[in-house]
Amino acid sequence: MISDGTGWTAEHSVNTALGQFEYCLVDLWDSRQIDDVDRLMEIVKQAAKEGALVIYTLADPSMAESVRKACEIWGIPSTDILGPITEAISSHIGVSPSGIPRGAAGGNVPLSEEYFQRIEAVEFTIKQDDGNLPKNLRKADIVLVGVSRTGKTPLSIYLAQKGYKVANVPIVNGVDLPRTLFEVDPEKVFALTINQHVLQAIRRARAKTLGFSDESRSNYAEMDHVREELEYAGKVFAQNPAWPVIEVTERAIEETAAVVLRLYHDRKNRCLMPRISKRY
Amino acid sequence: MISDGTGWTAEHSVNTALGQFEYCLVDLWDSRQIDDVDRLMEIVKQAAKEGALVIYTLADPSMAESVRKACEIWGIPSTDILGPITEAISSHIGVSPSGIPRGAAGGNVPLSEEYFQRIEAVEFTIKQDDGNLPKNLRKADIVLVGVSRTGKTPLSIYLAQKGYKVANVPIVNGVDLPRTLFEVDPEKVFALTINQHVLQAIRRARAKTLGFSDESRSNYAEMDHVREELEYAGKVFAQNPAWPVIEVTERAIEETAAVVLRLYHDRKNRCLMPRISKRY
Repeated sequence: MISDGTGWTAEHSVNTALGQFEYCLVDLWDSRQIDDVDRLMEIVKQAAKEGALVIYTLADPSMAESVRKACEIWGIPSTDILGPITEAISSHIGVSPSGIPRGAAGGNVPLSEEYFQRIEAVEFTIKQDDGNLPKNLRKADIVLVGVSRTGKTPLSIYLAQKGYKVANVPIVNGVDLPRTLFEVDPEKVFALTINQHVLQAIRRARAKTLGFSDESRSNYAEMDHVREELEYAGKVFAQNPAWPVIEVTERAIEETAAVVLRLYHDRKNRCLMPRISKRY
Repeated sequence: MISDGTGWTAEHSVNTALGQFEYCLVDLWDSRQIDDVDRLMEIVKQAAKEGALVIYTLADPSMAESVRKACEIWGIPSTDILGPITEAISSHIGVSPSGIPRGAAGGNVPLSEEYFQRIEAVEFTIKQDDGNLPKNLRKADIVLVGVSRTGKTPLSIYLAQKGYKVANVPIVNGVDLPRTLFEVDPEKVFALTINQHVLQAIRRARAKTLGFSDESRSNYAEMDHVREELEYAGKVFAQNPAWPVIEVTERAIEETAAVVLRLYHDRKNRCLMPRISKRY
């Protein structure tokens, strides 16, 4: 993977594409912020030696052309990731691309509105983590509810990076939920659930990491306790039918986040398709 | 943008490509988790009506073929994002793609090793935020040092999502840095710096958000104070030449993260190119 920028586009696209090839062991090489032709040729030469496939994203058209030609000459397969999309956009809107590599975030640099929004969301979400400040639930854009180890924290952080203020509320068997949770707009509350066997395995791993050994916490990963807690959560969810219940068992954090955001925007817009206007 | 999965690949690629078209106002429509042909055709029809460009990522070859043909019939420009990469990988490794949409994270689902690593990293980083636990600096993979509002928190969270345990140490003029900072491997410490005018503007916005009005905090955004604090930071950095100093002024968080990780892996590997083996 050769990139003139952060390399996240190449990494992200290649990882997603590789998701379609199970049980394959793949060696990835990753060269980012490549901005001179000599370095570029060095990498292509190395790829030829190793019999590698070259996947590149280079904004400068002469750099992209250099790598394409070099790969052709040395007989290496190569694929341009962003070239086709950039060309399609260019001919659609009738504007030439700048040819200058940019970060993945568009205008998301210090002082931009997006930058402030994102930082505020991340800081809010960190402070709110695990429902420490129930009175602040009203200020959250999204509230996640679920038992311990359903992935509330990593999910909330992922959503915060997208600019949403997220609050977590843990469900613990026998502990009353904060009153505020039932006072906020139920349309922003999302319930997380998970298969009990998977949850038990996650909790066992967790207990091991934390070195739990004392009696008071020892039932944390016990199957009876796990089942009871999930049943209690299920009852709470049934009493609040406006909260969508999202199954996280076989989902990566990105996938659960996509489900939450789709529902969030569907509810907010109540229209065929969410429309986002962006100025670049 | 049409996607059968999370939609992050389309969003990410299109945002990056749009970074090359400055001062353009673009309307984006975003349809994720599309898994039936009827819904697909509805969206393509709507795109035709609006004169839109269709950018899609559909793992199921028959779905991809349907959208390609429909766009051809209705005369809509269209681009397949992942198709070409998937085909290139397939013919290179000699394995057929599964045709099943997957999340962006490869195998990053609950119980996978990556899942645990990432959750641990996010939880560690949240706990460490703003140097609250200097004795834990040793356990961090990466330590970020910089004055207030250089973006340590969002950067550390971004890196944590990639699986790195990150600790922040704030530099405050006149306050001693924790001793532990000088005892840890200097190769994992990264210093952040920023233009003083930009920093002042960020701090002003911050002070406004927090509603600072009392005397005690009022110099936080004053130019003299900002300059002095940056000078103090500069002295600390000069005394620790092993710490790379990274300029964040015109960089998005993703870009700074890419710089940190490139240096981190260069230092760790001391080889031509970092090599990552991944099993899918």
